[in-house]
Amino acid sequence: MSVIVIGSVAFDSVKTPFGEVEKAIGGSATYFAVAASYFSSVRLVGAVGEDFTDEHLRVFSGRPIDLSGLQRRPGQTFYWKGEYGFDLNQAHTLAVQLNVQENFQPELPSHYRSTDTVFLANTDPELQQLMLEQMDDHKFIACDSMNFWIENKPDQLKKVLRSVDMLLLNEAEARQLAEDPNLVKAAGKIMQLGPKHVIIKRGEYGALLFSPDSVFAAPAYPLEFIYDPTGAGDSFAGGVIGYLDSTGTFSEANLRQAIIFGSVMASYNVVSLERLASLSYPEIEERFWEFKKLSHFDGIESAPCQ
Amino acid sequence: MSVIVIGSVAFDSVKTPFGEVEKAIGGSATYFAVAASYFSSVRLVGAVGEDFTDEHLRVFSGRPIDLSGLQRRPGQTFYWKGEYGFDLNQAHTLAVQLNVQENFQPELPSHYRSTDTVFLANTDPELQQLMLEQMDDHKFIACDSMNFWIENKPDQLKKVLRSVDMLLLNEAEARQLAEDPNLVKAAGKIMQLGPKHVIIKRGEYGALLFSPDSVFAAPAYPLEFIYDPTGAGDSFAGGVIGYLDSTGTFSEANLRQAIIFGSVMASYNVVSLERLASLSYPEIEERFWEFKKLSHFDGIESAPCQ
Repeated sequence: MSVIVIGSVAFDSVKTPFGEVEKAIGGSATYFAVAASYFSSVRLVGAVGEDFTDEHLRVFSGRPIDLSGLQRRPGQTFYWKGEYGFDLNQAHTLAVQLNVQENFQPELPSHYRSTDTVFLANTDPELQQLMLEQMDDHKFIACDSMNFWIENKPDQLKKVLRSVDMLLLNEAEARQLAEDPNLVKAAGKIMQLGPKHVIIKRGEYGALLFSPDSVFAAPAYPLEFIYDPTGAGDSFAGGVIGYLDSTGTFSEANLRQAIIFGSVMASYNVVSLERLASLSYPEIEERFWEFKKLSHFDGIESAPCQ
Repeated sequence: MSVIVIGSVAFDSVKTPFGEVEKAIGGSATYFAVAASYFSSVRLVGAVGEDFTDEHLRVFSGRPIDLSGLQRRPGQTFYWKGEYGFDLNQAHTLAVQLNVQENFQPELPSHYRSTDTVFLANTDPELQQLMLEQMDDHKFIACDSMNFWIENKPDQLKKVLRSVDMLLLNEAEARQLAEDPNLVKAAGKIMQLGPKHVIIKRGEYGALLFSPDSVFAAPAYPLEFIYDPTGAGDSFAGGVIGYLDSTGTFSEANLRQAIIFGSVMASYNVVSLERLASLSYPEIEERFWEFKKLSHFDGIESAPCQ
């Protein structure tokens, strides 16, 4: 069992009320791959520039992450600069330099072409489509996107969505894509575009999973210290997709557990990428059980006195 | 077993994107009493003016709601005018007329003075204190408040909190009272002011219960139609406190179930006060079980393959 991911490998400069980092390794595929690698093996598709050194690759080393689909291209690595205020739910983009991402054409190594589980991390929907077209076989496709692609490439995104089993979006993106302010109705409209399942990410409020016959509400882990939410959505997806792939089935029960594992990974991500990258599996499982306690309440045995 | 509540009985004019109502019956004690009356009997303390007719009292009739502590005073009933945009989490106050609420002095009927469970609904903390001082005996005191009292009568509010077992606040109010943007830390600081339990209400995101040794995250019910959130926090409190009183114990397990019953009542409240007032107990219990399904996920039996 393996997961294939296409997305960005990037340098991020991030300022938060708690500190500032310059050109740290980031990108949707990076966070996703590190988180998913605790559960399954990962095949990464992406591009980096000449400024991306072996030292930077160290975040992937010692993990079941196959980098034969990571192209090193002439030029600079994709760069994002952003800032968070005390409302850590909202990133403010200060600069984006596409660099080697601009004319990147994914070329899948032959052993990537048949992979059970596919994750199209947040990137240009034309790249997502190009990767899907190179695949011979897969069981389950999950996809992320963002406001920029919903606004600028809606038709290309909708084409991708016709093949997708599960879409992950945040609340504002779901409302924007469906053109409906009500999330329940928005999820229903998105399902009509293709995905059988829609996960709506709500940051510190948790996540909702809409399936054909049910809704699941997952809490977020209440944290005393949140240092940097960059990548939290991608490591959430890594936990969800990595765990799902490891189970080999995509049942509602597995999907719900997967969302909790995704929430576990996000809860470590918001401390730091280093923390996310230095976990032990027992720590992950322990926090899974903390989520169980966090959301547990007893059923009622009899009606109250009235 | 009974619940005593002090709060406002009011006329509300509310505009939402879905419609407008003029001088409908509202107020924190009204919503609370109607919701709590499905679980326990309620003793109401408040004041109305000469414009409050027997016709208006009909919302309380046929329910176990004792109105002998509701004073009819010369003048007009408390009036609130507000508006909601598409973000139904945030009310915009357009007008407030205190009217008979201004010089209201609660005087408890003698049979009110010993009541197991006390709810100090959102009102002037000096009134909350005056009511507490007239009570001979009680088991559990819960309290609500708002930004206005936190800003304008912080010392009086903190005096009340020293006697309180459980405080209910929304997120912004919790941050403001504790002077801490992090909710986990804010809840800890509020507990040091007196309350053993702090419930943080998050509207469409559910609620958090902080207790000395645990945290509970309750989801909100995902609704396709939300017409008017006025009173949702009060009917939430009515479900919580009414159910708790009906069980006679204030254990963590009962508190968690109580929060789900509160969430059930709020989910009907946001349709309309009429809907809230016309429920059957089986409908309430059915939605409780829907909350159980909404938040259920299986435990893990063994580690994934990795």
